[in-house]
Amino acid sequence: MSSSKTSISLIAQKAGVSNATVSRVINHPELVNKETARTVSFAMNSLGYVPKVSKTRTKEPKKLILIIFPDLSNPFYGEIINGIISSAESHSYHILINQTNFNNDNSLDNYLSLTKSTKACGVILSSSLRPEYYRKIASIIPVVQCSEYNTEALFYVSIDDFKAAYTAMEHIYSKGRKKIALINGPSNFKYAIERFRGYEAFLEYAGLPLQESWNINLPEINYDMAFAASCQLLTSSIPPNAVFAVSDVIAAAVIKAAKLHKIRVPEDLIVVGFDNINISTISDPAITTISQPRFQLGYSAGEILHQQISSAQKEPQRMLLNTELIIRASSSCNNINH
Amino acid sequence: MSSSKTSISLIAQKAGVSNATVSRVINHPELVNKETARTVSFAMNSLGYVPKVSKTRTKEPKKLILIIFPDLSNPFYGEIINGIISSAESHSYHILINQTNFNNDNSLDNYLSLTKSTKACGVILSSSLRPEYYRKIASIIPVVQCSEYNTEALFYVSIDDFKAAYTAMEHIYSKGRKKIALINGPSNFKYAIERFRGYEAFLEYAGLPLQESWNINLPEINYDMAFAASCQLLTSSIPPNAVFAVSDVIAAAVIKAAKLHKIRVPEDLIVVGFDNINISTISDPAITTISQPRFQLGYSAGEILHQQISSAQKEPQRMLLNTELIIRASSSCNNINH
Repeated sequence: MSSSKTSISLIAQKAGVSNATVSRVINHPELVNKETARTVSFAMNSLGYVPKVSKTRTKEPKKLILIIFPDLSNPFYGEIINGIISSAESHSYHILINQTNFNNDNSLDNYLSLTKSTKACGVILSSSLRPEYYRKIASIIPVVQCSEYNTEALFYVSIDDFKAAYTAMEHIYSKGRKKIALINGPSNFKYAIERFRGYEAFLEYAGLPLQESWNINLPEINYDMAFAASCQLLTSSIPPNAVFAVSDVIAAAVIKAAKLHKIRVPEDLIVVGFDNINISTISDPAITTISQPRFQLGYSAGEILHQQISSAQKEPQRMLLNTELIIRASSSCNNINH
Repeated sequence: MSSSKTSISLIAQKAGVSNATVSRVINHPELVNKETARTVSFAMNSLGYVPKVSKTRTKEPKKLILIIFPDLSNPFYGEIINGIISSAESHSYHILINQTNFNNDNSLDNYLSLTKSTKACGVILSSSLRPEYYRKIASIIPVVQCSEYNTEALFYVSIDDFKAAYTAMEHIYSKGRKKIALINGPSNFKYAIERFRGYEAFLEYAGLPLQESWNINLPEINYDMAFAASCQLLTSSIPPNAVFAVSDVIAAAVIKAAKLHKIRVPEDLIVVGFDNINISTISDPAITTISQPRFQLGYSAGEILHQQISSAQKEPQRMLLNTELIIRASSSCNNINH
């Protein structure tokens, strides 16, 4: 006697339970109370029933999603990872993370061989990559970009960096500061280009000149590099009286450099950061910053990728999430005019 | 005519170059100047030589190492990752990172299926795991533990947590503080157990009682949790006058909580952290801490794993790297006696 509707009915009849209960004892015994399970087993044995392993019990191997970040030392990414993991776990994906900057063909080839050898079914990209690299990857495997993205991409979750930077500049200017420096990340990142555009657009709107020495691109978001650059900037012959930093890590370094050189924050120097990571409240004074919804960025990227993988979603999904200006002590001073 | 020592000699003779040069033209043409390459090619053609694809030219797919961390939001791990990547790149491994806490059989099975499906050749573990889980993984694949480790493990790189904690306690006591609280990580981590042992051993040495309410285990190293716990601790009926925190993230939260409650650091409360991450200097006052050689921890783990993989190294390698006490403002005060 083998598994069939009829045999299940027979067992159910004999055990005095419903067909569904018999089915549960076979496929999900953990859901059935022990007494019922015993009665059903007894009925099965007496009928000579040998259960087949049900299809629903055959564990399919979990699929794998690869995530690519440019720099895991940047505390910005921790909460994005948690967001992605939350989404991935709910859809039973494995998650593996790689730290890559696609700076040459070799790194692209490496990466493609990795997606192949690990049999990944999709990727979430947070690294910056040239359009031709993006196209190459997207032609091979479902891709969602998270935070950093290519303009031509069909699937991404990010923020409006131009608008966020413009908002930060408006706030600084509202405090009467006109000598505003920008300490930015690597210029191959779209976020760096867009935040520069926001900075530049506001300067133009306010009739302020773009001062070259106040416009710094760091090669990476790194506290020590930012500290060195800040010391140089703040002790230069034409020091700024405000700094807009594209990361709280940089903003914290600016504040540390200011302290070293006896420059008061916010009285002599307003500092505004970006991201709203813990560092922004650990720093003293606490840092005024643009808050990014980091968990949500990661979670949404996971959801969009899942839709692409599971239903071959072809409709583009481009999400820009809202940011918020959080005003703290590093910019809380009266409007001075200098 | 096919590739052999003889044929290479013939070509070399005809082209008027050394055997080594002919070999280079075949295997590494990029290393030979164009004129020489042309002469050698001409000699090959005239002798009807068809080069075999050399073994060294056949690109072997890169092998994969998996790294497991308990929590990538903890900035402690960033520099460990950079150390591992440095080692792995020099030996041409791919690196993929997973965030896992082995809290049940399911997570172990998941992980084992992942090492299998990705064809990983080795793993570096920084998560805490039960002895039976460790044994299971180590029986299947080469393993090196990094930072966190099991006592029975043969291959690990870590620090002497007991000694480091004892040193921190000695320093705090040297400032005349006798009401010393410990804010620790999750108690299933060996580091947490060892640092508690160091704390306890020093209390015993100094003849101080172990006060239960001053001995806190957080469920994870998390700034917000640590802040909440600190507020409770500092406003309790018997507040401490010193806190030893097992992470700078926690120490920064203690300082923030102290500020909120108008408790002066270091005058009313000495704070000592652990790790020496950027946060320890971003915080104000800067945090006295135990510096861990994080890059070196990662790099050494990578090297030990490579030896295991490449030469089936069976000799146990257990490394404990040195830590240093770095004294900063959060404990820089005169010896008071209270």
